[in-house]
Amino acid sequence: MKKAIGIDLGGTYIKGALIDEQGNILVKEQISTLKELGADDILRRIAELTRQLAQMGEVPMSDLLGVGIGIPGFIDERQGMAVEVINIGWKKILVREPLERMIHLPVFMENDANAAALGEAWVGAGRGTASAICVTLGTGVGGGIVLNQKIWSGSNHMGGELGHFVMDPEGAPCNCGRRGCLETFSSATGILRMARDGIESGVTTTLTIEELSTKGIFEAAVVGDELGQMVVAKASEMLGRGLAMAADLINPEMIIIGGGVAKAGDDLFIPVREAFLRYALPRVVEAARIVPALLGNDAGVVGAGKLAF
Amino acid sequence: MKKAIGIDLGGTYIKGALIDEQGNILVKEQISTLKELGADDILRRIAELTRQLAQMGEVPMSDLLGVGIGIPGFIDERQGMAVEVINIGWKKILVREPLERMIHLPVFMENDANAAALGEAWVGAGRGTASAICVTLGTGVGGGIVLNQKIWSGSNHMGGELGHFVMDPEGAPCNCGRRGCLETFSSATGILRMARDGIESGVTTTLTIEELSTKGIFEAAVVGDELGQMVVAKASEMLGRGLAMAADLINPEMIIIGGGVAKAGDDLFIPVREAFLRYALPRVVEAARIVPALLGNDAGVVGAGKLAF
Repeated sequence: MKKAIGIDLGGTYIKGALIDEQGNILVKEQISTLKELGADDILRRIAELTRQLAQMGEVPMSDLLGVGIGIPGFIDERQGMAVEVINIGWKKILVREPLERMIHLPVFMENDANAAALGEAWVGAGRGTASAICVTLGTGVGGGIVLNQKIWSGSNHMGGELGHFVMDPEGAPCNCGRRGCLETFSSATGILRMARDGIESGVTTTLTIEELSTKGIFEAAVVGDELGQMVVAKASEMLGRGLAMAADLINPEMIIIGGGVAKAGDDLFIPVREAFLRYALPRVVEAARIVPALLGNDAGVVGAGKLAF
Repeated sequence: MKKAIGIDLGGTYIKGALIDEQGNILVKEQISTLKELGADDILRRIAELTRQLAQMGEVPMSDLLGVGIGIPGFIDERQGMAVEVINIGWKKILVREPLERMIHLPVFMENDANAAALGEAWVGAGRGTASAICVTLGTGVGGGIVLNQKIWSGSNHMGGELGHFVMDPEGAPCNCGRRGCLETFSSATGILRMARDGIESGVTTTLTIEELSTKGIFEAAVVGDELGQMVVAKASEMLGRGLAMAADLINPEMIIIGGGVAKAGDDLFIPVREAFLRYALPRVVEAARIVPALLGNDAGVVGAGKLAF
């Protein structure tokens, strides 16, 4: 069976896996990113990690189809370049050509959220689905679109950025420079901010600024805490409406929600499905199932590896 | 050169054209829909129109690749069925099989807005583009997405429905049953409604309810009419923000705007581009050109014909 390497480049760790053409992880490994040592060093260690994974999996390097890399920033695939990766401090770093020279294998690049979306749609919650919108609710709200079992990257790898849907032009400032983006409401950061604002403006609550966590906020909502319920309602309402717009446009079979905030389970999924039903066209609702992601942190390496098949 | 027939089924007219594989219209013709005579009669006359177009173009029927039909409603391609076509009063009408029996050619179906989008992207304003979002500003706001020069229909032919993005959950009622959809702001109907509401609530204006037209509203805005400017600003702002969300998701090379309202030209396109710039991510703005549609009423038949190639 054909095999490939998937690499998930992060600000703290570089994760790698040897996968087969059915999306099984044969071996995996992670190393520290050590971004302060510079781009050349990171690329050299990605090459090493690749060799190490091949060795651990007892696959000769020359039998590998290639290496796919998910990069947490803007990429220019034509030039094989990471245009800007804020987390790692990269600007205009050539990735493909130097790596290919080191490992003598084809290298494929994708945005990391897109790679994770591809992994989930391929062998995670979306296994067998023809079309999916994937959302990750973490520090931000990441997204990826999978159509005909391929990632739709868009014309310059910005496809799937539904976290920056401007839901409320007068909303809170977003990292992107705009206001009221979906991620100011439905990311972990957004949920914490709304709770903090509520506490500061005196909404009745048992929550305290010192011990705020998204988990705590969802738990408070379940036991009837007024602020907890307000925050969860707002985060779900905005996510449901944002997903409704994305689905009215894409009309997918599946909407897959992952990331830390999705661990709230039904306490999140039930109100999100309700909002989705309220805001999406009926035939779009009929077509789309909203489900939790399954692969967790492995989605990135699996999707990155898929790029090589 | 290979040839096919494109049919654009409307509530009043059925338009047809013989096209070649470069998207040229060789001959075209239109007949009345006469919906009151029923579905069987309409299908029979589509078959006749097909034969007539082949004859006018001096192409033997057996040399045609097939017939594509744009249908103004919901379709089920797998079953070859028009599920619901409100304008023509159709419910669950089998289209493909009876037509194929009459004309002995493969029949392809698509939503009419999607067919028009495909036509525009193929040989209209989007000629040569890999990805486009197409919007028609008419009675409603129709949309279609073209990816890799093919229409993305979605999982049940609802793809591209950005006219029903809920921009303001507390906005005016929409035909779809929701409130504040993009088309309540940026369609001809929406623009007229906003002007009427403004007149009734006493905003200073030279516009009168008796002589309202979208053209008149845009003209009033240009010469400084307060209500005219308010309405055009709102329609453009909402369209620009809706397109920004669609583009953040799809990251297209091109956004093509057609339909009656687009005839306002720069008076519409300039404020829409400004709003788009304000609301879309910078790299998404960089990638996407916003341009007027070129094919006008021919987009539908050309795109329908393209389905057969």
